[in-house]
Amino acid sequence: MAQTTNRQILLVEKPTGKLGPQHFKMSESAVPEPKDGEVLLRVLYISLDAANRAWMQGATYRSAVEANSVMAGGGLAEVMASKAPGFAPGDLVFGDTGWQDYTAVPAKHLVKVPRIEPLTHLLSVFGIAGLTAYFGLLNVGKPKAGETVVVSAAAGSVGSIVGQIAKIKGCRVIGIAGGKDKCNWLTSELGFDAAVDYKSEAIFKTLKAAAPNGIDVYFDNVGGDILEACLPQMNLRGRIACCGAISQYDGAPSATGPRGIPGLIVVKRLTMQGFIVTDFYDQRDQAFSDLQSWVKAGQLKVQEDVIDGLENTPQALIGLLAGENRGKRMVKV
Amino acid sequence: MAQTTNRQILLVEKPTGKLGPQHFKMSESAVPEPKDGEVLLRVLYISLDAANRAWMQGATYRSAVEANSVMAGGGLAEVMASKAPGFAPGDLVFGDTGWQDYTAVPAKHLVKVPRIEPLTHLLSVFGIAGLTAYFGLLNVGKPKAGETVVVSAAAGSVGSIVGQIAKIKGCRVIGIAGGKDKCNWLTSELGFDAAVDYKSEAIFKTLKAAAPNGIDVYFDNVGGDILEACLPQMNLRGRIACCGAISQYDGAPSATGPRGIPGLIVVKRLTMQGFIVTDFYDQRDQAFSDLQSWVKAGQLKVQEDVIDGLENTPQALIGLLAGENRGKRMVKV
Repeated sequence: MAQTTNRQILLVEKPTGKLGPQHFKMSESAVPEPKDGEVLLRVLYISLDAANRAWMQGATYRSAVEANSVMAGGGLAEVMASKAPGFAPGDLVFGDTGWQDYTAVPAKHLVKVPRIEPLTHLLSVFGIAGLTAYFGLLNVGKPKAGETVVVSAAAGSVGSIVGQIAKIKGCRVIGIAGGKDKCNWLTSELGFDAAVDYKSEAIFKTLKAAAPNGIDVYFDNVGGDILEACLPQMNLRGRIACCGAISQYDGAPSATGPRGIPGLIVVKRLTMQGFIVTDFYDQRDQAFSDLQSWVKAGQLKVQEDVIDGLENTPQALIGLLAGENRGKRMVKV
Repeated sequence: MAQTTNRQILLVEKPTGKLGPQHFKMSESAVPEPKDGEVLLRVLYISLDAANRAWMQGATYRSAVEANSVMAGGGLAEVMASKAPGFAPGDLVFGDTGWQDYTAVPAKHLVKVPRIEPLTHLLSVFGIAGLTAYFGLLNVGKPKAGETVVVSAAAGSVGSIVGQIAKIKGCRVIGIAGGKDKCNWLTSELGFDAAVDYKSEAIFKTLKAAAPNGIDVYFDNVGGDILEACLPQMNLRGRIACCGAISQYDGAPSATGPRGIPGLIVVKRLTMQGFIVTDFYDQRDQAFSDLQSWVKAGQLKVQEDVIDGLENTPQALIGLLAGENRGKRMVKV
């Protein structure tokens, strides 16, 4: 435990096109000393999220990540030493730890989390992924029983939970995912009513066949062509929960937006609403309690994709952007 | 009054590019006889609206207008004869009369209106334009005192009322309009805080200078480039009331939508919401009462642009699409 070197993965250059391993390098530094108000953390698991790539494009809901600094990223960590009231060695926390073994961060940026087993659930169903799915679907999408809900990136960490919660709420659920295997998994394992493989099927037509009564709620993780295909199929007063735009992250920013905006929004009286999970943190207790009871009852299956070794974090993100993962991807440091 | 011919303006062909006089022709038929449940109307004023052009592109919130039929359009009319309970000769009504002197229509499609003088106000501030501005701004845009409201097509029938209501509600108001004259009118006569001339100014920069604290509510009448310029300037949790997309109506449909969607919607937690005035008709009494008291108090100025003669209706619409009018344009039949 008296480790003195801290492995860190730096972003050496901001990618202009696709993200590749050449944009990162491993480096070593001394384990930092916490200052007043800070805690020293040992990072246990690093969360991989498509948003990591968006942060390289510029300021979003956080400042942009900069070249030649430790790559930013959410992580589950254990407190090793504390110079902040309310935090003690052994506490588990979630925060922006970055891609490294150790970090000293101001305690005010950390959230204490309970020691739930398996710990990985704190980054998947009980972490940002689960809460994003829960709040985005229920507070923004507002589905009613019997309505049709479509979710993109449906085999991903958020999408796979969105679809299952929509089923729990009595909706017809269609997932859009890349590849036959993922699509089969959605329908046979997670209980989705239908799945559309955007890599091998004509998305507009297949979606239309899968959603013959139109779409009431579209939970959008991807933007771009898939958003464009959903727009004309939205029902009157449909809701589009804008969660992310994965299709736009890994490359040059798109020169255009989806056709039909704002025309279809007017005609169909649609609501498109963007959100970030923290917007709803005042309702977190209820969300945790619901998610826990659904997992316990077997109504909500948790799929995780845990990769071993800090050194594999760059490739884990590159692969996530290429759609490799099923469920929540994270790195065990 | 015993007129026997009914002048009618037909849409002879649906335009694929810009609308021109060649797309219309005048025709004559007999004054129709009302059937059971119908009333015979004499059309007094025809409302010209950018939406008339959108109806030629396809089904919207109503079915598309078809070639070789009387051009559709809202009108203020007087009941001449009635075969429907509740309607008597002399009653004033609003409905889709079409571009003609007389029409017989099912009474269930008509709305009786009070005999307010001047009658033209029933098509402007107390008509669809005024109600659209009222409900769109207050129920969809939800501005708070001190917030910045931007409205496009600000010198038009809806926009000119939106801006004035926003001022009444204590907002900073910026209008976007075409040409110096309109812009001067907005600031000097209607009390807008600033106006941006999209025809001669770099819209993004000028808007940024006029809205240094960002935009909280954007009332969008035009879509396209102007929506794209507003999106990055929206404040966190800003609202975009999607009322229309004039920039997209008169020509081939746009191949793309505005950049930044859905990315900016997510990051800024924006809400884009489409609406049609009838969505809020259950609250019409309150709206009428507010609008009437503001007009009476001189807080809301009514600008109308009345053109004489049924035969001039095509040119009146063509001119409206080119941005000729200031305030509500209508034809006195």
